[in-house]
Amino acid sequence: MNRVAVIGLGLTKFGEMWDSSFTRLFVEAGAAAVEDAGMDGKDIGAIYIGNMSGGRFIDQEHISSLIADRAGLNPISSTRVEAACASGGLAVRQAIMAINSGMHDIVVAGGVEKMTDVLTEKTTQTLATASDTEWEAFLGMTFPGLYAMMARRHMYEYGTTREQLAMVSVKNHRNAMDNPYAQYHTEITVEQVINSPLVADPLRLLDCSPITDGAACVILASEKKAKDFVDNPVYITGSGQASSTISLHSREKITTVDATVNAAEEAYKRAKKDAKDIQVAEVHDAFTIGEIVAIEGLGFFEKGKGGIATEEGLTERGGKIPVNTSGGLKAKGHPVGATGVAQVVEIALQLRGEAGKRQVDADIGLTHNVGGSGGTAVVHILEK
Amino acid sequence: MNRVAVIGLGLTKFGEMWDSSFTRLFVEAGAAAVEDAGMDGKDIGAIYIGNMSGGRFIDQEHISSLIADRAGLNPISSTRVEAACASGGLAVRQAIMAINSGMHDIVVAGGVEKMTDVLTEKTTQTLATASDTEWEAFLGMTFPGLYAMMARRHMYEYGTTREQLAMVSVKNHRNAMDNPYAQYHTEITVEQVINSPLVADPLRLLDCSPITDGAACVILASEKKAKDFVDNPVYITGSGQASSTISLHSREKITTVDATVNAAEEAYKRAKKDAKDIQVAEVHDAFTIGEIVAIEGLGFFEKGKGGIATEEGLTERGGKIPVNTSGGLKAKGHPVGATGVAQVVEIALQLRGEAGKRQVDADIGLTHNVGGSGGTAVVHILEK
Repeated sequence: MNRVAVIGLGLTKFGEMWDSSFTRLFVEAGAAAVEDAGMDGKDIGAIYIGNMSGGRFIDQEHISSLIADRAGLNPISSTRVEAACASGGLAVRQAIMAINSGMHDIVVAGGVEKMTDVLTEKTTQTLATASDTEWEAFLGMTFPGLYAMMARRHMYEYGTTREQLAMVSVKNHRNAMDNPYAQYHTEITVEQVINSPLVADPLRLLDCSPITDGAACVILASEKKAKDFVDNPVYITGSGQASSTISLHSREKITTVDATVNAAEEAYKRAKKDAKDIQVAEVHDAFTIGEIVAIEGLGFFEKGKGGIATEEGLTERGGKIPVNTSGGLKAKGHPVGATGVAQVVEIALQLRGEAGKRQVDADIGLTHNVGGSGGTAVVHILEK
Repeated sequence: MNRVAVIGLGLTKFGEMWDSSFTRLFVEAGAAAVEDAGMDGKDIGAIYIGNMSGGRFIDQEHISSLIADRAGLNPISSTRVEAACASGGLAVRQAIMAINSGMHDIVVAGGVEKMTDVLTEKTTQTLATASDTEWEAFLGMTFPGLYAMMARRHMYEYGTTREQLAMVSVKNHRNAMDNPYAQYHTEITVEQVINSPLVADPLRLLDCSPITDGAACVILASEKKAKDFVDNPVYITGSGQASSTISLHSREKITTVDATVNAAEEAYKRAKKDAKDIQVAEVHDAFTIGEIVAIEGLGFFEKGKGGIATEEGLTERGGKIPVNTSGGLKAKGHPVGATGVAQVVEIALQLRGEAGKRQVDADIGLTHNVGGSGGTAVVHILEK
């Protein structure tokens, strides 16, 4: 693939945004990205929007039309893509393809979810539609339950400890302290995680990412067109997407997410890079075990060593490879359709040197977005 | 855009498929397409799936993962795209982009909807989520209501008659008699349409497309790769997609669907063709007025002359431009996410000379797929 430039970045505050609407969130992030790129809306050729479940959260399908309309962008093409919590990653990938196909020069990849306008019970049921409805959700399985099984098995096979899981959460909450867009600005301790209410053994409340409203947008452009707007864009040089079984019980192993391994392999190959080249990463820590499985699957650490690597501080700012400098899904928040795009925003900010107090030293970064318990994974590699 | 070859076609029977499931429908259509192409599943690089509302019809989001899984296609990338009833058209367009981006050689574009597993009330509510939820659906507006306003205004402005609307339905039911995959094999008369139960004045039951289960798949390939599988493929030479206001009341005129006009303009330009070059078309007749507005918007007939053109038989087989030889959404059925793909199947069959008793003489054809009341439109041009 030809590399594609990232020329505009926009985020809303993540959190319980009761004073905003689904469309207002998206338009706010989009306007910020357009302003960041120093462009006009009329330069945009197409929009891709990651959204998991407008149909269930706000009784609205066809959100691509709604957003083009409210953003004043008619008549350009607007397309929703969905793979549960990986929807945002798909939007970025489709925008890359749209540019590389030669059919568009400048494309918005955005993501949005409004999750707090329904009762929590409905939110949990809706999130469960990302699992295998017939074989998992119908039987009462929830996402904490699925990830709890992955955690339990990882502890059994590799000796990962309850404390190591907690350290993922502690680190990400610490990082979020320096992210003004994050949902939580609360430092927590390992003891607080371990003593928080049990959700699905061994996972406790502070192992789980929250329910979040929010939106994120990036503006992508062909390398040639990017020069009209910015001097030193960041580039997406690799993209990978893979599928695995939607249900956990169909997998040979539940301690590795095959889709992550396969998506990373594709992305590394396209970017002509390797795991050891990556200097900063945003990974899918919907649950603390998710980050440990991710940093192994992406090749940053040997299989089974994700827990100990976390304990040794290798994923902290200043460590071997800083992971989730934004605060991650755990502390920045997880508006599911927006997450994959927000990850690209964070890595682009880091590579630009605009990450403020959470800035790390990096020229090459990676984003990793997962749908469901690993039925879909999307990986992108960004370079200065 | 580079033209892309259509090398495999697959359909399920359309109808109330109570003995089949969502995934079984898709896999059946996919297997038929793979067989038609004389290929193996392992040649496939990616899947795009048009689906309007798995989340509400079958309590399942993340259907891209479900389908890759059940089709035995892991670990390739699988992506759901959605713009209500235009979802299938988007799947075809994304597959074209995936190939033209150079990232994939062979891509499946499919669509599927399982609509009859919920009560009709829920189906109507779910279809209404394709309109503007806050400003239309919330106030009780349904799709027959929206199209009824378009019909009433078209009658007022252009003298379109109640009989002309009925003639669309009569023609499409007649065409469906020769389509073994169609939901209805029932010839009807103008009198029967006009005397059928009133749904939303002036539209009656036989002006409305039905609730349908079904799936459709096409396999697309780069021109170079296509030669490994078929001798004389049909090509998609033009693609257009456009957005308009999601709500009807925001439009300057409700007798023209701007998105159709704009999508057609893009598709004609890409294919270097004009409306007068088109010899057969599948258009979005979710309601009879929809076909009349479509054949005007696509440029086949002057604005306001769609009704009289229908009355004069110009859109019949043997007429100036045969429209909806498959039976259209009205009589073939309208499994919303599948429709845009099924339209491409029909035109490809016509261009191949494999349309059986409904065969017409054509080298160039067009498909036209609409989301909602016209918030989205997708147009494709196919050539021998």
